[in-house]
Amino acid sequence: MTKVAVLMGSKSDAERMSGAVKTLEEFGLEPDERVMSAHRTPAQVAEFARNARADGYVAIICGAGMAAHLAGAVAANTTLPVVGVPLSGSALNGVDALYATVQMPKGIPVATVAIDNSTNAALLVVQMLAITDDVLAAKLEGQRLALGEPPK
Amino acid sequence: MTKVAVLMGSKSDAERMSGAVKTLEEFGLEPDERVMSAHRTPAQVAEFARNARADGYVAIICGAGMAAHLAGAVAANTTLPVVGVPLSGSALNGVDALYATVQMPKGIPVATVAIDNSTNAALLVVQMLAITDDVLAAKLEGQRLALGEPPK
Amino acid sequence: MTKVAVLMGSKSDAERMSGAVKTLEEFGLEPDERVMSAHRTPAQVAEFARNARADGYVAIICGAGMAAHLAGAVAANTTLPVVGVPLSGSALNGVDALYATVQMPKGIPVATVAIDNSTNAALLVVQMLAITDDVLAAKLEGQRLALGEPPK
Amino acid sequence: MTKVAVLMGSKSDAERMSGAVKTLEEFGLEPDERVMSAHRTPAQVAEFARNARADGYVAIICGAGMAAHLAGAVAANTTLPVVGVPLSGSALNGVDALYATVQMPKGIPVATVAIDNSTNAALLVVQMLAITDDVLAAKLEGQRLALGEPPK
Amino acid sequence: MTKVAVLMGSKSDAERMSGAVKTLEEFGLEPDERVMSAHRTPAQVAEFARNARADGYVAIICGAGMAAHLAGAVAANTTLPVVGVPLSGSALNGVDALYATVQMPKGIPVATVAIDNSTNAALLVVQMLAITDDVLAAKLEGQRLALGEPPK
Amino acid sequence: MTKVAVLMGSKSDAERMSGAVKTLEEFGLEPDERVMSAHRTPAQVAEFARNARADGYVAIICGAGMAAHLAGAVAANTTLPVVGVPLSGSALNGVDALYATVQMPKGIPVATVAIDNSTNAALLVVQMLAITDDVLAAKLEGQRLALGEPPK
Amino acid sequence: MTKVAVLMGSKSDAERMSGAVKTLEEFGLEPDERVMSAHRTPAQVAEFARNARADGYVAIICGAGMAAHLAGAVAANTTLPVVGVPLSGSALNGVDALYATVQMPKGIPVATVAIDNSTNAALLVVQMLAITDDVLAAKLEGQRLALGEPPK
Amino acid sequence: MTKVAVLMGSKSDAERMSGAVKTLEEFGLEPDERVMSAHRTPAQVAEFARNARADGYVAIICGAGMAAHLAGAVAANTTLPVVGVPLSGSALNGVDALYATVQMPKGIPVATVAIDNSTNAALLVVQMLAITDDVLAAKLEGQRLALGEPPK
Repeated sequence: MTKVAVLMGSKSDAERMSGAVKTLEEFGLEPDERVMSAHRTPAQVAEFARNARADGYVAIICGAGMAAHLAGAVAANTTLPVVGVPLSGSALNGVDALYATVQMPKGIPVATVAIDNSTNAALLVVQMLAITDDVLAAKLEGQRLALGEPPK
Repeated sequence: MTKVAVLMGSKSDAERMSGAVKTLEEFGLEPDERVMSAHRTPAQVAEFARNARADGYVAIICGAGMAAHLAGAVAANTTLPVVGVPLSGSALNGVDALYATVQMPKGIPVATVAIDNSTNAALLVVQMLAITDDVLAAKLEGQRLALGEPPK
Repeated sequence: MTKVAVLMGSKSDAERMSGAVKTLEEFGLEPDERVMSAHRTPAQVAEFARNARADGYVAIICGAGMAAHLAGAVAANTTLPVVGVPLSGSALNGVDALYATVQMPKGIPVATVAIDNSTNAALLVVQMLAITDDVLAAKLEGQRLALGEPPK
Repeated sequence: MTKVAVLMGSKSDAERMSGAVKTLEEFGLEPDERVMSAHRTPAQVAEFARNARADGYVAIICGAGMAAHLAGAVAANTTLPVVGVPLSGSALNGVDALYATVQMPKGIPVATVAIDNSTNAALLVVQMLAITDDVLAAKLEGQRLALGEPPK
Repeated sequence: MTKVAVLMGSKSDAERMSGAVKTLEEFGLEPDERVMSAHRTPAQVAEFARNARADGYVAIICGAGMAAHLAGAVAANTTLPVVGVPLSGSALNGVDALYATVQMPKGIPVATVAIDNSTNAALLVVQMLAITDDVLAAKLEGQRLALGEPPK
Repeated sequence: MTKVAVLMGSKSDAERMSGAVKTLEEFGLEPDERVMSAHRTPAQVAEFARNARADGYVAIICGAGMAAHLAGAVAANTTLPVVGVPLSGSALNGVDALYATVQMPKGIPVATVAIDNSTNAALLVVQMLAITDDVLAAKLEGQRLALGEPPK
Repeated sequence: MTKVAVLMGSKSDAERMSGAVKTLEEFGLEPDERVMSAHRTPAQVAEFARNARADGYVAIICGAGMAAHLAGAVAANTTLPVVGVPLSGSALNGVDALYATVQMPKGIPVATVAIDNSTNAALLVVQMLAITDDVLAAKLEGQRLALGEPPK
Repeated sequence: MTKVAVLMGSKSDAERMSGAVKTLEEFGLEPDERVMSAHRTPAQVAEFARNARADGYVAIICGAGMAAHLAGAVAANTTLPVVGVPLSGSALNGVDALYATVQMPKGIPVATVAIDNSTNAALLVVQMLAITDDVLAAKLEGQRLALGEPPK
């Protein structure tokens, strides 16, 4: 099965990242949830990211709050697509995490989704795979249909 | 050649979107620049987005400012990956465009990059394609190398 | 009776849009509540908006949160007056919806009211109709009187 | 001719309000530009607003910056539709004017448009009149057509 | 006794304005609490403000939320000192009220205190009176002493 | 003559504080401009503030930018009225100075005016003195008259 | 034992500052908690800060909310390192305290940590001491190890 | 000589970081300027930080803009004190860099100074060293004296 990493900075983020896990499973992908931190376990993050392509991952979803560096730290160490989910929960309610995730410098992109919206992070990964996978593309059409009307 | 749409809300956005065009070309992709507006030409946007997969596009990059709905309007009408570039230039200096682009509801993701950073939008599309394209993956490694050190 | 559309992005917005419905009824207008989404059901939104004038609507009130594109998507497809109600409820507490609703580009206005203030959206529509409807104008005077003093 | 008031807090706002004047003229309406201030000439503002309907105005456009009270002060004294244009130019670059214009309390709406976008304020007034004026409605269709595609 | 007006936009603001009332009483002044609104009862506000000096008031404290125009509307109609208390409670949590109260144009000041801090509004009025009233000045010294150390 | 202190954190603030100086002179008061800093010369600030009443000052105007503590540091050491002028010029453009000036704790008020608006700071002091000084009150009426209409 | 001052503006801040106290104790340092206010007890603050080095303190941690001047007022009166902890709790939720703490002018630094994060303030002091104290440096390595992996 | 690292994300940041270099030199310390990026050269950053203590550095100053991860990435890999200088220059004018630098999670502090204020970053390092270095402490007293008055 196609592996997608779902990284989060802390165990307490698991609930908010569950939308990603569930959505990936619904599309037949294999989410690999891991807790690692750009600040507390930086070498682990760097090593994971550097090996991710060789280890068979196709994309990496990262959820983090406050000075949310996880997605950026991963993106710095891989050329796989990295999707960042800014998490709320701080006094600044996620604006800090949003800015720290999306405002990446030229050369190292992070695909950022809405604050706390890990479901969309997973859908984005499915869309990436569906560029060349017609079965997934068809499933995405089905998911949209379920939202109310058929896109193409 | 692999076609990537580069949409912008106004002709005056072309300069800021040129980073995307140039980067796509550097990676051997075919950027297709088009000016269309979620507000001034909504039917054109919807039609373009609905046909984009069938028309051979693999992803759609959208640059827009203010109440930047272009990326969202495109994403609503396709299951191809949509990358949003919030553009500055308004009195709110791009915060309006950032929020209007990234805060998408559950079900319809937009991969958002930093304000005015169209180069990263293109790199993100290249990363998506490189999931299954080893040549592009190798080129991405080369691009990173040029930034200072080799990632994997 | 004079029909006014009251659109909302999600069923869960109904409570916050009830002020509009109730106010329209108090002024003898006919609110037509509908759930449709600029992102989940874009074709439905476009079609509704394009036909709204011919279908006898005089104005369209739109309530949406986050990257609140509903009002803008409707305004793009009609020349009827569109009133936008930014809804709170996201991590950004409605600032995202406010910016996404009010910062419309030249050519396509959305009449924006305060965050969550659907009552004022309805009053605005009544004021529009009262330009040429003396009975409604008199009722508006009465409503103001009830607030504490008579305006003209 | 149908009179529309275009009020501004200071003579120096005239340039930014010129979009409203020009647009009203293009649609065959009669803009009546006046400089008056909710803070410097409050009695004049109140009197103008209280008499506006009787004096033959159909709507009032108000442009003001900083603690932009002009639109609110006018709206408090009339039941005609009031359109507020928040103006930039302060250290806070128009966010102050936006909040002071749009965040009106229940009962007294101000139809707020984008910061500095007086053109849209005028278009909104035309849309209000076009509810019952088929000629104006047709002209609006023409204006949209000029933007790129025909709405209905 | 020396009269100080304590105006608030709505009865529901009374709790948050009670700090002003209590503090004025502690200093032997006579607070006169009144509910009036810059938007719902503008003529009442203007008349009250225009007559305030002749009616024996020495200063006017105004508490209001959202597009908080009360202090500005009062200040526009009197040359007595006006103290503005921005009130929280909206989706924007008082930032709207702060900007709408403090960002007054040249010529018409409002002395603004912290969000919800009506106690300080009253102390400010006492300080104004203590410029020429040695008894009040001594009482203020005592109040400071109670805070921890004696200022002069 | 009645002395009013006009303190500023740096010589470079003099231009922006000149509105206060000029206005005080127009009303026949004696501005005493001094450069002192809550951070660079704290003892001087504390001593000045502690002696200000005895030294014959009736009020103290303080202009400062960034983490603008000058007004608060003065207010902490006197019971004279302190008027704070937040100054722009930092990367945060005066929002930092506004928050640092206005958000004072219970017990120690600072009368805050708009960013960079030192003219209003002076007018506020004149208003304070005019509570008991009929000549100044009359002059204030004259100043308002010059703005466009007579308040009372 | 090495003394580190832990100052807070109010007794009610003790809970949020407890992370600093606990952390200092864990590293064998002696926290000295004191309640004093830049606004309510300015002379006490100035005197404490001026004597702190002679009194044997090695650093001063300051927690304060709103217009959080405590750290700045201390820093102005000592050349010991001052660590500022912006506290939330106001309507502005700590953004005011953050700006008032971090935006210090050239010449007088305050080492600012995240909103409410007093634990990090203590760790920062330990890091300062560990520059020349190998035992503390080793303990810091141990603390990091406990977070997940060993830094050096 | 005592070595202090001065890291910056890009060569173009050198001007804004020159205040740190100059200040360190004035205090007889040895600044070691290096350009390295948390995103473009992450391994270099991690390696530098991991070896910094052994390599004889006593502290690390990091200047970066936008999603400013440099200070955090360094702090994650060392227990030396890390001072972060948020740099302006993006559309968000440094607010993004401020939040990304200061909002660090529990366990990994970054001592953050004002936006663009690299001089204060250097002074902070001098203060750290002056805890145990009486000569530096005396020099700091001299520097303060030059600002206007002697602290202790």
